[in-house]
Amino acid sequence: MVSDMRISYEELRTEFLRVLTATGFIGADAETLARTFADNSRDGVPSHGLNRFPGFIGDVKSGRVDLAARAQSVVALGAMEQWDGHRGPGVLNGLASMGRAIELAQQHTVGAVALRNTSHWMRAGTYGLHAADAGCIGICWTNTTKLMPPYGGLDKRLGNNPLVIAIPRPDGDHVLLDMAISQFSGGRTGTHKRSGEPFPVPGGYDADGELTTDAAAMERPLPIGHWKGSGLALCLDLMAALLSGGQTTTQVARKENEAGVSQVYLAFDLRRLGDAETIAETVHDTLSELVSGANAPGEQVSWPGQRSAGKRQDALRDGVVVEQEFWAEVLAL
Amino acid sequence: MVSDMRISYEELRTEFLRVLTATGFIGADAETLARTFADNSRDGVPSHGLNRFPGFIGDVKSGRVDLAARAQSVVALGAMEQWDGHRGPGVLNGLASMGRAIELAQQHTVGAVALRNTSHWMRAGTYGLHAADAGCIGICWTNTTKLMPPYGGLDKRLGNNPLVIAIPRPDGDHVLLDMAISQFSGGRTGTHKRSGEPFPVPGGYDADGELTTDAAAMERPLPIGHWKGSGLALCLDLMAALLSGGQTTTQVARKENEAGVSQVYLAFDLRRLGDAETIAETVHDTLSELVSGANAPGEQVSWPGQRSAGKRQDALRDGVVVEQEFWAEVLAL
Repeated sequence: MVSDMRISYEELRTEFLRVLTATGFIGADAETLARTFADNSRDGVPSHGLNRFPGFIGDVKSGRVDLAARAQSVVALGAMEQWDGHRGPGVLNGLASMGRAIELAQQHTVGAVALRNTSHWMRAGTYGLHAADAGCIGICWTNTTKLMPPYGGLDKRLGNNPLVIAIPRPDGDHVLLDMAISQFSGGRTGTHKRSGEPFPVPGGYDADGELTTDAAAMERPLPIGHWKGSGLALCLDLMAALLSGGQTTTQVARKENEAGVSQVYLAFDLRRLGDAETIAETVHDTLSELVSGANAPGEQVSWPGQRSAGKRQDALRDGVVVEQEFWAEVLAL
Repeated sequence: MVSDMRISYEELRTEFLRVLTATGFIGADAETLARTFADNSRDGVPSHGLNRFPGFIGDVKSGRVDLAARAQSVVALGAMEQWDGHRGPGVLNGLASMGRAIELAQQHTVGAVALRNTSHWMRAGTYGLHAADAGCIGICWTNTTKLMPPYGGLDKRLGNNPLVIAIPRPDGDHVLLDMAISQFSGGRTGTHKRSGEPFPVPGGYDADGELTTDAAAMERPLPIGHWKGSGLALCLDLMAALLSGGQTTTQVARKENEAGVSQVYLAFDLRRLGDAETIAETVHDTLSELVSGANAPGEQVSWPGQRSAGKRQDALRDGVVVEQEFWAEVLAL
């Protein structure tokens, strides 16, 4: 049974800041982390906002995430750089990496940073939005430990390797695709397990090898599009490791606690690629056309990011929805 | 009823070359087109090899594809360039664009070409393999006309926007993901319609809005992963159009014959990013691990590109499998 309440965005952010400061974070880093965790809950991704915050603090206290370490450029190679995250906070590492990819894009039109040896980045969409806020198309992905079997297999060999594509819109409500390559992310699977609500489509296989919509009965997550997501997850993993000189899912899984994942950040500076008005019009025209057809019964076509933009507006107006237990846990930290 | 026979790769290529020369192609362009169509059939993609060849020749003869036009760089922007395909042959435009992306990657580590106004590129994987043969990771995609509805909708609004990721292996049997964002490509849907064989998983919706494995009953293709593929197809379309200054799916669909699609070609030069031996070992380790688990009953885990590499070896040994009707059609051209 989940019990919800609403907290103002400012109260949430300030409370995160209090705990982060008490944990040892200072200055802009503490502010950035507090804002990012608050943004994630505000946008309807509490699994990587409030609900995950106590775990993040625990990881810092246990030393699993190195409070003092920050990502650094290892090799600069023109429009691309390799960075090492030194197992520092994944959110700070990720924002710094996409920040550098944006700078490289401003110089070379396309810019890339491949980051190795980093810790969990929380909400993948954060880094896409960072690029879009700077007027760039942002693409990024991470590998993970082993979470799902490849198509045709029974044993977990692949990460669910979340992939993000962000396309800027002038009003700030960017197009934002943020998806795990499993049909349902770990966060959403957890929500369905707690609520007992069935998935709208099969999310994976049960103990008998049958596809199921029951999150609790699901033993192996299904890659999106069966063999297609299976292949995509593999390629995202290989690219993240090869481009960053970092670990593959196979190598991450040999260690405890998903330590030292590999990530790729790409930015394309749209300001160098076309006229701002034409670009905005093309995006507007495409999104308008997308939602112009008939809806299936009980459905409503939307574009990626549209619902989270709606939740953001709702949260800023009426307060951020929080699960009471997690809020109490943070207050007690 | 489909009737197969085998033709040697050389006979196939030579026959294509004869027809291409008779149609007006000369020199290296004729050679490249003949080789590419033959390669596509050889690798088990006849839908964009032999079976499509007569249609391509028809498009050239009707002027829908401009025999004399070739893609050209419009703006050079550092590590990225915008090209215009001038509705020339999609295969030649695509190879030139990926070729330039490879050169840019050799200079800037990452290189990108966005191509507008081009015609059908046949097998998407061709351009990924081109990058991998040069020691680069290659990523490319194209938009298309409207082929599938977005998640929750009944009317076609999205392209199936094939996406390719290629990762080089020293033996030339590269990792090659080549996938339409619909659960089944147009080519594979056609094969199932002709054979009557059901899809292994639902491929789309029938007239009653139910998911079906019957290709003939399918009225609307399903995006991979439902809302995820729907969002991915949208983002691939927007990126292709914005980065190239070209048309979106919406704009392509306003014209006849899928004229003037937009494409993106990305290359990452692995030789600048790490030691060749370590890279080869990482890929080998990952692929070995992928296939090391238990197989589901009746299944066999493989990596993307593994089966087409097997078909290639088989075809080079025993001849390329061709459908007799299409072969007869080409002989009569």
